[in-house]
Amino acid sequence: MPERLGPPRAAPLFGRVAIIGFGLIGSSIARAARHLNLAGTLVAVDRDEAVLARVRELGLAEEATADLAAGVGDADLAIICVPVGAYGAVAEAMAPGLKPGAIVSDVGSVKASVIAQVQPHLPAGVHFVPAHPVAGTEHSGPDAGFATLFLNRWCILTPTEGADQGAVDRVRNFWSAMGANVETMTAQHHDLVLAITSHVPHLIAYNIVGTAADLETVTQSEVIKFSAGGFRDFTRIAASDPTMWRDVFLHNKEAVLEMLGRLNEDIALLARAIRWGEGDKLFDLFTRTRAIRRGIISVGQETPEPDFGRRRDGQ
Amino acid sequence: MPERLGPPRAAPLFGRVAIIGFGLIGSSIARAARHLNLAGTLVAVDRDEAVLARVRELGLAEEATADLAAGVGDADLAIICVPVGAYGAVAEAMAPGLKPGAIVSDVGSVKASVIAQVQPHLPAGVHFVPAHPVAGTEHSGPDAGFATLFLNRWCILTPTEGADQGAVDRVRNFWSAMGANVETMTAQHHDLVLAITSHVPHLIAYNIVGTAADLETVTQSEVIKFSAGGFRDFTRIAASDPTMWRDVFLHNKEAVLEMLGRLNEDIALLARAIRWGEGDKLFDLFTRTRAIRRGIISVGQETPEPDFGRRRDGQ
Repeated sequence: MPERLGPPRAAPLFGRVAIIGFGLIGSSIARAARHLNLAGTLVAVDRDEAVLARVRELGLAEEATADLAAGVGDADLAIICVPVGAYGAVAEAMAPGLKPGAIVSDVGSVKASVIAQVQPHLPAGVHFVPAHPVAGTEHSGPDAGFATLFLNRWCILTPTEGADQGAVDRVRNFWSAMGANVETMTAQHHDLVLAITSHVPHLIAYNIVGTAADLETVTQSEVIKFSAGGFRDFTRIAASDPTMWRDVFLHNKEAVLEMLGRLNEDIALLARAIRWGEGDKLFDLFTRTRAIRRGIISVGQETPEPDFGRRRDGQ
Repeated sequence: MPERLGPPRAAPLFGRVAIIGFGLIGSSIARAARHLNLAGTLVAVDRDEAVLARVRELGLAEEATADLAAGVGDADLAIICVPVGAYGAVAEAMAPGLKPGAIVSDVGSVKASVIAQVQPHLPAGVHFVPAHPVAGTEHSGPDAGFATLFLNRWCILTPTEGADQGAVDRVRNFWSAMGANVETMTAQHHDLVLAITSHVPHLIAYNIVGTAADLETVTQSEVIKFSAGGFRDFTRIAASDPTMWRDVFLHNKEAVLEMLGRLNEDIALLARAIRWGEGDKLFDLFTRTRAIRRGIISVGQETPEPDFGRRRDGQ
C-alpha cells in the first residue's frame, strides 16, 4: 500500500477544474491535483473573500473568484465542496456558466438530497457525477487541507440511472489518481451506509459531549481533566464543522433517524443487562466488537498503533 | 510539561512492592517503578502461569508468583491491578500475607464497590488507599504496558474517612514520581465523574459497534471499508478488555444508568430537532462542543494534531 502520492502525470486529466468551496476538502483536492498534475488550470471559487485571499497567498489555484458562473466558465470539471444545504443555490448560480460536455461532481456526505438539489438546475449536455470521499479531519478551512487526505481512503460514486459512462470513468480516474479507492453504489444505499459509519457516530459524539458539559453533579473542569478515560476520543469528531454537520443531518433525516432507532433498541438491552447484573451478555458483546476493529485495521483503514498512535505526553 | 520520565531516584520510595495482576496497568507500573527506582524489590503476582512466564522472560520483576499471600508477604505496598469484580476474592486471599503497616492500593476504574469489597478483609494496621490512574490503551496484557503510560495523566485517590494520612501521602508520592497529577475526592464522586468521562463513552462505543455489525441493510464489509467517516474512532475503545469492562459496568451500575438516562433525554431532543428540521438547535450544540475539545487540548490531555496525529496512510 503506497504511503505517499505518486509522481505527477505527464499530461493533466482535465483542462480546467473549478473547485467550489475552498475548505478542508476543496483545498485538499487542489493540493493533490496540483501535486499530481491532474488539472491544466485550477480555479478556486468561494463566496468568502477572506478564503479567496488565503488561496492567493498560499498559491493554491491559478484563479480565485467569488463569482460562481464566471468561475465555472469553460471548466471541464466543476467540483462542489460546500455544505450540502447550499447545493441547490450553488447549482442554480453556476448553471449559466457551464459549457456543454462539462462534468459537475461534488464531495457531499449525503447523496440522494444532493442529486435532487443539483440535477434540475443543470443544462442539457452537462454530466453530473455525485461523489463522496470518505475522508476528513476535525479541522476546517483552506489551511487545514493536505494533498494526501484521500490516500487509501474510499471515494463513493453514486451515478444516477442513465449517467454518461465516460463522465463517470473520468471522475473515477480523478479520484484514483489522488490515491483513493473508488466504489459505486446507489445514492439511497450510500445514505444508509454513511448514516451508520459516519453520521450517527458524529451525532452520538456531539450528544455525549453536550450532555457532559451540562451536568450539574460533575463540573466541566472535571470532564476536561479526566477525559483520557475515553471521553476525549468523542470530542474529536464533536469538534467538526458545525455548518457541514447541521446540513448532513437535515439532508439525511430518514436514514439517520432509522439508525438512531436501532442504537436505542440495543442500548436499552445493554442498560437492562447492567441493571440485572447479566455479565455474560456484556462480555459477549465486548468480545465481538474487538473483531470489528481488527477488520478495520487489516484493510488499512486504521492504524494498529495503540491509542491511535497519539503522542504519549498528550502534546 | 515533561515529555519523558525523570532520572531514577537515589533511594527507592518503597522497599518491597507487590503488583497483583500483571496486565497493561500492572506491567506499566512495574516498568515505571523500575525505571525510576521506586521499589527496592518488585514482586509480580498473577494467577496466569503464562503471564508469570512472560514476566520472567521480560525481566519485569525480581520475583513472580501465583500465590497471593506469599506474594504480598513482607510487602510495604501491594497494588491490586485486576478486574474490579475479582477484588473481594483477591483481598481475602492476600490478607493472611499482609504485614502490619503495609499499604494496600489499587488501580480500579470504580471506587465505592472496590472499598466495599476490600476493606472488610484487611487486617488491623493495614492501610487501604484506593487509587485510579485515568490512563490506558485498548491493548491488554504484560506486553502492552509501557513506563510512560501515566505521564501527564491524572491519578485519583479516594481515601476513606479516617484514612492514615501518612499512607495516603506515600501513595500520592508514588504516582507523582511516575509523572501523574494526583487529585483526591470521595469514592462516590469519583464514580459519578468516571461514569461520564469513561464508563458511558465505553458503553456507547461498544453499543454502536455492535449495532453496526448486526445490520441487515448494510454489510459488515461496508461498515469496515467506510469506517474512516467517524465510526472507526469508536472501535478503539470498543476493543478494550472485555472482562475489565464487564466488571466496571456491573460495579458502577447506578452512576452508569443515571448518566445513560441523561444521554437518552438529550438524544431524544436531537432526534426531534432533526425530524422537524430545527437546524439552529443542531448548529448551537455543534458549536458548543468544539469548545470542550479546545479545553482538553489546552490542559494537555489531548493532542492538538488533526485526526489524533494518526499516520496518513492508515498503517
